[in-house]
Amino acid sequence: MTPTATATDEFVAALREQSRRYHDQHPFSRRMNEGELGREQIRCWVANRFAYQAAIPRKDAAILANCPDRQVRRRWIRRIHDHDGTADGEGGIEAWLRLGEAVGLDREELEDQRHVVPGVRFAVDAYVTFARTRPWVEAVASSLTEVFAPDLMAERLAAFERHYTWIDPQGLAYFRARLTQAPRDSAHALEVVTEHCRTPETQAAALAALSFKCDVLWSMLDAIDRACADRR
Amino acid sequence: MTPTATATDEFVAALREQSRRYHDQHPFSRRMNEGELGREQIRCWVANRFAYQAAIPRKDAAILANCPDRQVRRRWIRRIHDHDGTADGEGGIEAWLRLGEAVGLDREELEDQRHVVPGVRFAVDAYVTFARTRPWVEAVASSLTEVFAPDLMAERLAAFERHYTWIDPQGLAYFRARLTQAPRDSAHALEVVTEHCRTPETQAAALAALSFKCDVLWSMLDAIDRACADRR
Repeated sequence: MTPTATATDEFVAALREQSRRYHDQHPFSRRMNEGELGREQIRCWVANRFAYQAAIPRKDAAILANCPDRQVRRRWIRRIHDHDGTADGEGGIEAWLRLGEAVGLDREELEDQRHVVPGVRFAVDAYVTFARTRPWVEAVASSLTEVFAPDLMAERLAAFERHYTWIDPQGLAYFRARLTQAPRDSAHALEVVTEHCRTPETQAAALAALSFKCDVLWSMLDAIDRACADRR
Repeated sequence: MTPTATATDEFVAALREQSRRYHDQHPFSRRMNEGELGREQIRCWVANRFAYQAAIPRKDAAILANCPDRQVRRRWIRRIHDHDGTADGEGGIEAWLRLGEAVGLDREELEDQRHVVPGVRFAVDAYVTFARTRPWVEAVASSLTEVFAPDLMAERLAAFERHYTWIDPQGLAYFRARLTQAPRDSAHALEVVTEHCRTPETQAAALAALSFKCDVLWSMLDAIDRACADRR
């Protein structure tokens, strides 16, 4: 049974509704955007968040590994290139390392993840495991937090340029790149999810996947908030 | 303890030694290259082998998903592009579909894998599962059958052009592409394996992985031989 256009609209609206659980609402995120964090707290966040950045290509490769649709794979693979880059000095992981340098962390202490706290590690691992073990369409649905990302990125970029002037603006290239990558990526993911989830059961599974992903991001900030709070 | 150059040479020699277990020695492969197969047998082989071709990008994505080394990922990802292509009409899977058309099989009957026999399916699944579940360096080692592939491809190409003149030579583009891709890929894989396997234990694991892969290919031909024998 093909769902009506209305049913699809309602599904998309329910997905978008998850934005109220997105981590831009987290107290740590709010304090960051209001300019209330000290240098050590920013460093602590950058170092911990690196664990997530470093895991993204493996998460996306796990989705590729489970996806039998060649056309979806051909588009999804761009995400891996975006993060890994095609040569030294390129890609989102490299851009995050440069953000780290801009806030006063050297590459080695980011890459060996010595500052990453267990709560962050567990949340990141949960996300990669989800992509490995759940049906690939659910893993795609879990990426839909990217629908909400451009607003957060724009707000964060403005907040950093305004409140954290001690950070070289060149170090913020990662956020700028995501302003254009995230809408492209989320449009594709939304296309895949609405095409493949046409029953109440599959739509509920997609919503649960997105809710899970909101939990991953929120839980990371809980752990970061706890770990970084006394670093003022 | 860093192994001596001799120890590395011995390891590489032991890997190359596995060529005696490569499927070019299989009776079905020999009969193919001697021009003894009928049209239905060639079709049966092409249709069954498609299950393997279609699974290769998922196998390679599983290796990416397990590999923490960004530089290795950047090189390994080319394999996925080689097989999936970057647009419609490109890539190794497409080239195999054209081989299918050249031998008289339509795309649909290849893609839905209706002709694939259980023994082939199980062997292909075993290979993908190996890449998903074993340490990534072992999965890389299992790809080293590509060291032996160019000789087989060259021989097969010559045999097809000589014995199976009813097949449009344009349909053989897959084999021609592999003549250059396989040496490039196997050189990279060999570099990774010799760099990461520097103890007797890890070298034994790499040898076992390559031996397993020889079993996969051999077992596929066993199943194909059984299924296709009476299609003369």
